[in-house]
Amino acid sequence: MSTYTATTVPTHFVEATGIRFAYRRWGRRSGLPLVFNQHFTGNLDNWDPAVLDGLAKEREVIIFNNAGVASSSGEVPTTFAGMAKNAEAFIDGLGLTKVDLLGFSIGGMVAQQITLDRPDLIRKLILVGTGPRNLDTGNGQGHITPETAAIFGATYDPPENLWLKVFFTDSAKSQAAGREFLKRYLSRTENRDAAINDKVVPAQIAAIAQWGAHPGERFAYLESIKQPTLVVNGNHDVIVYTVNSLYLVQNMPNAKLILYPDANHGSWYDYHEDFVFETNRFLNASEVTVPVARNAAV
Amino acid sequence: MSTYTATTVPTHFVEATGIRFAYRRWGRRSGLPLVFNQHFTGNLDNWDPAVLDGLAKEREVIIFNNAGVASSSGEVPTTFAGMAKNAEAFIDGLGLTKVDLLGFSIGGMVAQQITLDRPDLIRKLILVGTGPRNLDTGNGQGHITPETAAIFGATYDPPENLWLKVFFTDSAKSQAAGREFLKRYLSRTENRDAAINDKVVPAQIAAIAQWGAHPGERFAYLESIKQPTLVVNGNHDVIVYTVNSLYLVQNMPNAKLILYPDANHGSWYDYHEDFVFETNRFLNASEVTVPVARNAAV
Repeated sequence: MSTYTATTVPTHFVEATGIRFAYRRWGRRSGLPLVFNQHFTGNLDNWDPAVLDGLAKEREVIIFNNAGVASSSGEVPTTFAGMAKNAEAFIDGLGLTKVDLLGFSIGGMVAQQITLDRPDLIRKLILVGTGPRNLDTGNGQGHITPETAAIFGATYDPPENLWLKVFFTDSAKSQAAGREFLKRYLSRTENRDAAINDKVVPAQIAAIAQWGAHPGERFAYLESIKQPTLVVNGNHDVIVYTVNSLYLVQNMPNAKLILYPDANHGSWYDYHEDFVFETNRFLNASEVTVPVARNAAV
Repeated sequence: MSTYTATTVPTHFVEATGIRFAYRRWGRRSGLPLVFNQHFTGNLDNWDPAVLDGLAKEREVIIFNNAGVASSSGEVPTTFAGMAKNAEAFIDGLGLTKVDLLGFSIGGMVAQQITLDRPDLIRKLILVGTGPRNLDTGNGQGHITPETAAIFGATYDPPENLWLKVFFTDSAKSQAAGREFLKRYLSRTENRDAAINDKVVPAQIAAIAQWGAHPGERFAYLESIKQPTLVVNGNHDVIVYTVNSLYLVQNMPNAKLILYPDANHGSWYDYHEDFVFETNRFLNASEVTVPVARNAAV
């Protein structure tokens, strides 16, 4: 499988708990595979091939559609807890007993929940452009930032230009990086994934609302995520505000933060070479001891 | 000079604008030297030899006492603007026309001011455990955090145990790293620097107060620091609160942030191997274009 790339790797299917999951798996068979959890409305084709193939040089990468998304069967749950259970069934269905886990945006929320549910399944965690339960969304309604509502509410020609606004800043440099990303995004010309159906968006939005309204002591649950974690974002994420990345690393026992300059929600696509370097280095590092206590002050 | 280390390099002096500056300079003669700006009450011996010698493997490092500190003559100014002018005189006095600049804590405030004063003198900037003008200090009095007042107000036996509280978290892991740091800090046994006199602390505290109270649009001046910048801190800095590192990278055009887990004000001493790796990589990277505009939203 190591000769495949993101644009050539075939789509496979695995059946678990009554759901037929679509996935793609390729890369160097060394160490643990890295399983990716996708963003709002995304399918198998929405990942950046530069990031996938950069990471696949040193490990297997596994991308999949969670239940109800695009070419996977089933229904999209209305909570990230439900999506996490389905993702766990998918990983179990592949016969994997230990993986590294990456989540982007709402995929990072699902990834946190998977790690809480199944700590023994997850060795290391990578959270990109995401936030904790009860996150900051400014004066947003329904736990979505005002910018998110405006950007996703507009129309684009061609439609994929949406991602120039979601993932990149308005600077000339970042928009140029965005246009390079769109070329990579469209570079798989055969066997592209199916479109998502009309039920995906309302269910994912319901899950976002539930995550944002989470009761209880704010951020306390993060203390339970003891895996070595790399948190990555842009310095100006308008979709999941950057301050939420600070909340993550200030409340997790063992999380390093990297913020990129002049970067929005898709900072890892904007700085894909640096991201791949940092992430391969993080995943390759020998495991460090989880600290037994931490200073509670900010 | 390349056979010297932080513990063996002799102290030299250079005269500029009527001040006799004490400094030490060693390391590989390749590219630009890196000039260090010291923290509150620190003299030539307060830097971590592990960081200095790690960086000296790939470039010249220059540490110095600013005017009025320890073995340098003159008086400590009561503003960072005044300290910056003296630092610039020191760099000019060495005949250097372009350097990389590092500042730690209040040294990072001086380093910002040097870069604003003399943008052509500074190629790249590294800011560790510091913050912008008008920074957040919680409910601190006089623009010093409550923790800073408590930690510096206590007594320690031996006195250097102060740094275990200033630089490291209360976790067993971080305190163990702190004790290793203290060994390194004391490893220079001959030709140690002079102690600071009684005028240093009040002048540096006056400068901190003036920096914290700075009027005008908050953080707007940071837009003018266009140099590629690496901002580094711990996730729980109680001396200069970690959120100030976020303010720096959100208001500077070209600044990358790294926050270390379970780490306080001295995160770069706690994680000295990773810091040296990241900083050498940052300084060795070919210069990137400064973005011409950035997204103003958080």
